[in-house]
Amino acid sequence: MTDLFRRRMDLAIDQATDAGLTGLLVTPGPDLIYFTGYRPVITERLTLLVLAAGRDPHLIVPVLERPDAVRAAGAGAVTITGWADGADPFAAAAPLLDPKGRYAVSDNAWALHLLGLQQVLPGAAWTSMTTALPMLRAVKDADEVRRLAAAGAAADAAYEQIVGVRFAGRTEHQIGTDLAALLREHGHSQVDFTVVGSGPNGANPHHEMGERVITDGDMVVLDFGGLKDGYGSDTTRTVHVGEPTAQEREVFDVVLEAQQAAFEAVRPGVACEEIDRIARDVITRAGYGEFFIHRTGHGIGLTTHEPPYLVAGERRPLVPGMCFSIEPGIYLPGRFGVRIEDIVTVTGDAGRRLNNTSRDLRIVA
Amino acid sequence: MTDLFRRRMDLAIDQATDAGLTGLLVTPGPDLIYFTGYRPVITERLTLLVLAAGRDPHLIVPVLERPDAVRAAGAGAVTITGWADGADPFAAAAPLLDPKGRYAVSDNAWALHLLGLQQVLPGAAWTSMTTALPMLRAVKDADEVRRLAAAGAAADAAYEQIVGVRFAGRTEHQIGTDLAALLREHGHSQVDFTVVGSGPNGANPHHEMGERVITDGDMVVLDFGGLKDGYGSDTTRTVHVGEPTAQEREVFDVVLEAQQAAFEAVRPGVACEEIDRIARDVITRAGYGEFFIHRTGHGIGLTTHEPPYLVAGERRPLVPGMCFSIEPGIYLPGRFGVRIEDIVTVTGDAGRRLNNTSRDLRIVA
Repeated sequence: MTDLFRRRMDLAIDQATDAGLTGLLVTPGPDLIYFTGYRPVITERLTLLVLAAGRDPHLIVPVLERPDAVRAAGAGAVTITGWADGADPFAAAAPLLDPKGRYAVSDNAWALHLLGLQQVLPGAAWTSMTTALPMLRAVKDADEVRRLAAAGAAADAAYEQIVGVRFAGRTEHQIGTDLAALLREHGHSQVDFTVVGSGPNGANPHHEMGERVITDGDMVVLDFGGLKDGYGSDTTRTVHVGEPTAQEREVFDVVLEAQQAAFEAVRPGVACEEIDRIARDVITRAGYGEFFIHRTGHGIGLTTHEPPYLVAGERRPLVPGMCFSIEPGIYLPGRFGVRIEDIVTVTGDAGRRLNNTSRDLRIVA
Repeated sequence: MTDLFRRRMDLAIDQATDAGLTGLLVTPGPDLIYFTGYRPVITERLTLLVLAAGRDPHLIVPVLERPDAVRAAGAGAVTITGWADGADPFAAAAPLLDPKGRYAVSDNAWALHLLGLQQVLPGAAWTSMTTALPMLRAVKDADEVRRLAAAGAAADAAYEQIVGVRFAGRTEHQIGTDLAALLREHGHSQVDFTVVGSGPNGANPHHEMGERVITDGDMVVLDFGGLKDGYGSDTTRTVHVGEPTAQEREVFDVVLEAQQAAFEAVRPGVACEEIDRIARDVITRAGYGEFFIHRTGHGIGLTTHEPPYLVAGERRPLVPGMCFSIEPGIYLPGRFGVRIEDIVTVTGDAGRRLNNTSRDLRIVA
C-alpha cells in the first residue's frame, strides 16, 4: 500500500511541476484519502499534507490526532508531525512552504485554513486543485475502476429489488427509505442520496423525497447512490406507475435516445463538452432543450461529484480510466421529469457502462 | 420563523459593521442553517448568502437547487437568485459585492469558492468568520438552549442504558454500535461519534473504537454525541470493568476534581482561557499536567465543535447563553485514559450542566 500512495504522490508532484506549481496542499477529504488513506474525523483543526518537488511528503496534524494518522494506510510514505492546541498551526506549517511559492489547495480546504496560510505567507500564490490540476484524480487505476464497478453492480441490484415493491399509495419517503436499506444490504457503507421524485416533484432535478403519496399515473425519478468500499455509486432510472400517456412516453424516449447517443460517443480523445453537446442536441432537436437544465455528467470516484465534468466549456479530452455519469434529463415544471443515468468508464477505444439494468421505461405497481 | 432569521441576519450585520467589515459571506453549513434554515445537499457548486449593511440579504444558488432553496424556513427573509451550469458563479456574485470591501467568510467555505471570489475581486479583503466574528453563533437563544438540553438529556438516557450492558468479552465496536443505536432511539437524527476507548486505547483521546475485546480490569472512556432536532450532544463518562486499582482511582479522582473546579468557575465575565487554566491547574498540581494534551472545551450548537473554545489565549469572556463542553482528561500512553465531559450553559450568574448523569466512576460488568 505504501508504494501505491508514494506513486500517487510522485505523479501529483510531477503534474504540479508541469503546471508551474511549487506544490500541493492537501486537506482532509477525498484528496487526503487518495494520497494517504487518512480520514480524520475532526476537520476544524488544521491537517495539511504538503507535496512539493525535492522534499519528502510531510503531513501536519493536530497532536491529539497523531496516533490515528500514523495508522493510516499510507502513513509509511509521509513524515507526520503534530501541532498542539494553543499553538499557531499556520506558523507550524510555514517552514514547510516556500514564501514565494505557488500552491494548489484542495478544493474543499476550509477558508479558515486557506486564509491562515495566506496570512503567514503573504508572498505566495494560491489556486484551487480543480483549477490547477483538474484531472488529478480523474483517471482511475484498475483497482479503482473495479471498486466503482462493484458499487455500480450493488446499485443495480438495489434497483432490481425496488421496482418490485408497491409504489402507488406509498410516500416518496417510504420508497426512498426502502431504497436506502437495499443499498446498505448490497454493501454500501454510506447512502448519500435517494431521490424519489414523483409526478411534479420529478420536475425538480434535486428534489430528494417528500411526503407526497405516489399515485397511479405518476412518472417517478429514482436517483440513488452512496459509497461502497470507499467508492461511489450514482444511477438514475425513471419508472412509471401504470401505463404512461403518449407524451410521457415521448419525453422518456427522447431522454433515452440522448443518453444512448452520449454513451456511444465516449472514446479517448473526445472533449468532455462534446458528450454534453451530443446529449443536448438530441433533446433540443426534439423541442425540449429549455427543459434540460443541468450538465450532462460529472466524474465519480472517492466522491460522487468530481472532475471530469461533462459541461459546455470543458474542452479537455476523455482519457482511458476516467469514470463519470451520463445523465440527461427533461423537466416539465408542475408536471413530471425524466432522467436516465449510468456511470461510464472510458476504455481503450470506447465507453463501458458500470450500470447495466434495463434503461427501458419500467412499469411499476 | 422569517422574523427569527431576519433578526439573526440584522444582528450579524450590526456585529460585522462594528468589526469594521463590509459584510458576511455565508456558505453551506451551520452558518447558512443559522441564517436561513437552508441545508443544500450539494456543495461543490457555489451557494452564497451575502449579508451587508444597507442591502437586502441575497442568496445565490445553483439554478437547479433553487426550488429547494425557496422552501427553506428562512427563504422569506432573503432574495434568492440562481446561476446556471456553465455560467461563472463568481461573476454572478461579484455585482453583489463591494470591490474594495472587507468580508468575513464562513470558516468551512470551500477554498475553491474563496479563491474564485478573490480572483473576481482582487481589491477586496477577506477574513474568516471565526477570526472576525468568533462569537457570531456562540450565544444561544432560549430555543437553542432548550434544544441543546434535550440533546443532552437524550445522551444521558443512552448512557444510563449502556452501563447496564455487558462490557467484558465484547469488542469496543460492539459497545459503540449499541451506544449509537441508543442515541438514535432517544431521538438523535445523526450520531457523529461513539468513542469507546478501552484500556490502552483510552489513552488516545481521539481513538474511535476498534476490534479490541474489553476485559475485566479495563478503564473504558465513552465519548458520544450527535445531533437531535438540529442541535448537538457531546458527553463523556469513564467507566471501569470490575474494581479499579488504586492508581486508576487516583487518576480518575484528579480528572473529576478538575472537571468540577472548572464547572464551578463558570459565570459571566470570566475569560474562556480561565476555565481551561483552572482545570489544568488541578491536573498539573496532581503531577499529570503533561498527560492532559488537549484544550478543556469547545462550544456546541448547530455543530459539535464551534466557538467559544476554552483554551489558553482565548481571553474573551463568558456570556449568558454560551454553551460549551468542559472535558479535562488524563492519558497515560500504553495504559489507560480518563475523561469526564459535560455540556454547560452560562446562566445569569453561574453555569448549568446539560448532562446530569453521575460523574462518579461507574463499575460495569
